[in-house]
Amino acid sequence: MNIIDLGKQNGIVNQYIAEMRHAEIQKDSWRFRKNLERLGWCFGYEISKKLQYEDFVVETPLGEKEVPMLSEQVVLGTVLRAGLPLHQGLLDIFDHAGNAFISAYRKYHKDYSFEIFNGYVTCPPLDDKVLILADPMLATGASMEVAYNSLLEYGKPKHTHIVVVVASTEGVELIQKKLGKMPVTLWYAAMDEELSAKGYIIPGLGDAGDLAFGEKQ
Amino acid sequence: MNIIDLGKQNGIVNQYIAEMRHAEIQKDSWRFRKNLERLGWCFGYEISKKLQYEDFVVETPLGEKEVPMLSEQVVLGTVLRAGLPLHQGLLDIFDHAGNAFISAYRKYHKDYSFEIFNGYVTCPPLDDKVLILADPMLATGASMEVAYNSLLEYGKPKHTHIVVVVASTEGVELIQKKLGKMPVTLWYAAMDEELSAKGYIIPGLGDAGDLAFGEKQ
Amino acid sequence: MNIIDLGKQNGIVNQYIAEMRHAEIQKDSWRFRKNLERLGWCFGYEISKKLQYEDFVVETPLGEKEVPMLSEQVVLGTVLRAGLPLHQGLLDIFDHAGNAFISAYRKYHKDYSFEIFNGYVTCPPLDDKVLILADPMLATGASMEVAYNSLLEYGKPKHTHIVVVVASTEGVELIQKKLGKMPVTLWYAAMDEELSAKGYIIPGLGDAGDLAFGEKQ
Amino acid sequence: MNIIDLGKQNGIVNQYIAEMRHAEIQKDSWRFRKNLERLGWCFGYEISKKLQYEDFVVETPLGEKEVPMLSEQVVLGTVLRAGLPLHQGLLDIFDHAGNAFISAYRKYHKDYSFEIFNGYVTCPPLDDKVLILADPMLATGASMEVAYNSLLEYGKPKHTHIVVVVASTEGVELIQKKLGKMPVTLWYAAMDEELSAKGYIIPGLGDAGDLAFGEKQ
Repeated sequence: MNIIDLGKQNGIVNQYIAEMRHAEIQKDSWRFRKNLERLGWCFGYEISKKLQYEDFVVETPLGEKEVPMLSEQVVLGTVLRAGLPLHQGLLDIFDHAGNAFISAYRKYHKDYSFEIFNGYVTCPPLDDKVLILADPMLATGASMEVAYNSLLEYGKPKHTHIVVVVASTEGVELIQKKLGKMPVTLWYAAMDEELSAKGYIIPGLGDAGDLAFGEKQ
Repeated sequence: MNIIDLGKQNGIVNQYIAEMRHAEIQKDSWRFRKNLERLGWCFGYEISKKLQYEDFVVETPLGEKEVPMLSEQVVLGTVLRAGLPLHQGLLDIFDHAGNAFISAYRKYHKDYSFEIFNGYVTCPPLDDKVLILADPMLATGASMEVAYNSLLEYGKPKHTHIVVVVASTEGVELIQKKLGKMPVTLWYAAMDEELSAKGYIIPGLGDAGDLAFGEKQ
Repeated sequence: MNIIDLGKQNGIVNQYIAEMRHAEIQKDSWRFRKNLERLGWCFGYEISKKLQYEDFVVETPLGEKEVPMLSEQVVLGTVLRAGLPLHQGLLDIFDHAGNAFISAYRKYHKDYSFEIFNGYVTCPPLDDKVLILADPMLATGASMEVAYNSLLEYGKPKHTHIVVVVASTEGVELIQKKLGKMPVTLWYAAMDEELSAKGYIIPGLGDAGDLAFGEKQ
Repeated sequence: MNIIDLGKQNGIVNQYIAEMRHAEIQKDSWRFRKNLERLGWCFGYEISKKLQYEDFVVETPLGEKEVPMLSEQVVLGTVLRAGLPLHQGLLDIFDHAGNAFISAYRKYHKDYSFEIFNGYVTCPPLDDKVLILADPMLATGASMEVAYNSLLEYGKPKHTHIVVVVASTEGVELIQKKLGKMPVTLWYAAMDEELSAKGYIIPGLGDAGDLAFGEKQ
């Protein structure tokens, strides 16, 4: 498994994450969503460098030109609901992609421990496709693992790019342990060290789903 | 229950629907999604005329001005997955709104009859809010009814605007029959007369979810 | 000449203008531009109701349908630079439109009086087209008059919709006086009464160009 | 002067340019504009890696975090009208940037030779800022040189990133010859070898301004 930290290379992604973390700026849910969308563009663009292209001859109004066009089929998988703005950004980059939506939710026990359940999955066949699976936060890593495994029921992708914005050390370790031998690249843009007892990344940015879409009951 | 046909007033919504119906143009899934988004703007804008506003004094750089600002809380409810681009458009208009996501799916019997099941719901409290519930196609009307009723578990909205792009005559009748006494307005932009044995609107435009997001297994 | 005040009908346009006037909120130039874009959607959508449509038969995947499509050619004219976000919004609505760009600038005399000069015009032929000419502020009205007249050199539009967000009483009077006999509709969304000695609308919202794009030398 | 060819690294930019070159696909002016916008994202994102960042402490809802934020002031300069969609994309990336607009036009002589004139310039002070100057096509290079020099009248930027989508060999040579000793980086995504007698890149893609905004008189 490859791990790529997009925040390490100096770049505008850090600025977007700073705005998302900022307790005042993050109150503007529109800007919060737009920052997630822009991060989707940045991740999508970087991932596009790992894909395969083939030369095609294109007829321009003034002559022919051989140009490289994407020769792999991309499927964008999204964990609801927090993943939607990130998905929007990835889809802006890969507008011809197939799409998968998956809901995973935490069921808390009295001691704050929790299990992850799947509620809803739609997915195209995945055999030989490139899967990009996005969720803004990688906290314990458990819901990402559940999401990944439930998508594998739809076929065997050539490669999977897991995209998160903020990862916890613990979450990265879990993904490495559980998916380390799979054809997977883990992308994140910031790593925070702590997890709270309830499984929140600290300092993180709060609940990405609530910040993007408002509180839920 | 009020029923409003946005397509009857001459306007650009008809052009967008024409592109969505067009067997060639609809192959561009980006344009298909964008047309749904734009319809979200148009519906959202028209719905905004039904909402309540209150005058606030705003401090401009050159003096004070009394201006009307929205005084009702709006929640945008979306039926997955086809409803997502319509939701995006509505959220562009009501960027401060709360959001609900709901999945409903058909389980077909051997004779093509089907039942609707709920897979996933997230929703804020709805008491005294204005709910806008969007799904591009109103075919039999059964999934919209299920979606509406499952959201009512989260509270009692002051009013609900159900937004669909293409409705079948049968779907409108079902909504009228089932929700006719509720504080509901049904908005659509085109009405088609037939339903196929499998519950597809004819001529309609095909499967809106597939056209927006690709086929699913 | 028709005059239509979009702010009079209760609706979300008032909310957008309130945010643009608000001395704190307007500091977010992204939101300021987006509010202008959204106003472009609202104006464009309302103008679309005044246009002509013709029924075409569209081949859908499941059958034929007669649908109304726009039968007039629209040209979107924009006064630089403040008009650009409004233009972006109008172009989102009329994505097949032609486009005209025009710069007009004020040359101040010592006594604060000023003349309007044209710096740059690109425009398609306008004969028999519907021209939508947009600039966010109608202060004295002089630059709009100059813009309109310089576009007339490119042909005689069937009708011109002049779109401004905030108008001054004086500006509306000037347009009425100068263009009152032309096939013109003037659209605005708010009317303020005063003009400063330097020709700024009071309370208005400040310099729309600076707020959207930053100060210029 | 640095020269960076973004098309050489395998990536999605080639796909976007292929669509822009494609004689059929380019007829959809909305997609054409969107492809230019997306190229603006890609260029902007890559340029952001060359900028300077400083660590700031951001207060998140769950604690403090040191995060890098952009510490240079960016100005986005745009050559009208073809540069506008590219500018839109760059502004999506650098939403806090200042903005400059500049018109340069060709005046043809009888023998097809031409001179470049400036029609309109607005620009903030440029001293010590990072200027990103965008125009989709670098044909002879003459209008880019005129644009660059006319912006220098507004101050001396620390560095200028000239961004073009398709460059001709001749255009690159002219920029190297004329601006080779300036603090300039030239970015392009495709290089074509020929120039027609009228100064069009062959095969190129046609007139980018016409394709984005329609023909002009």
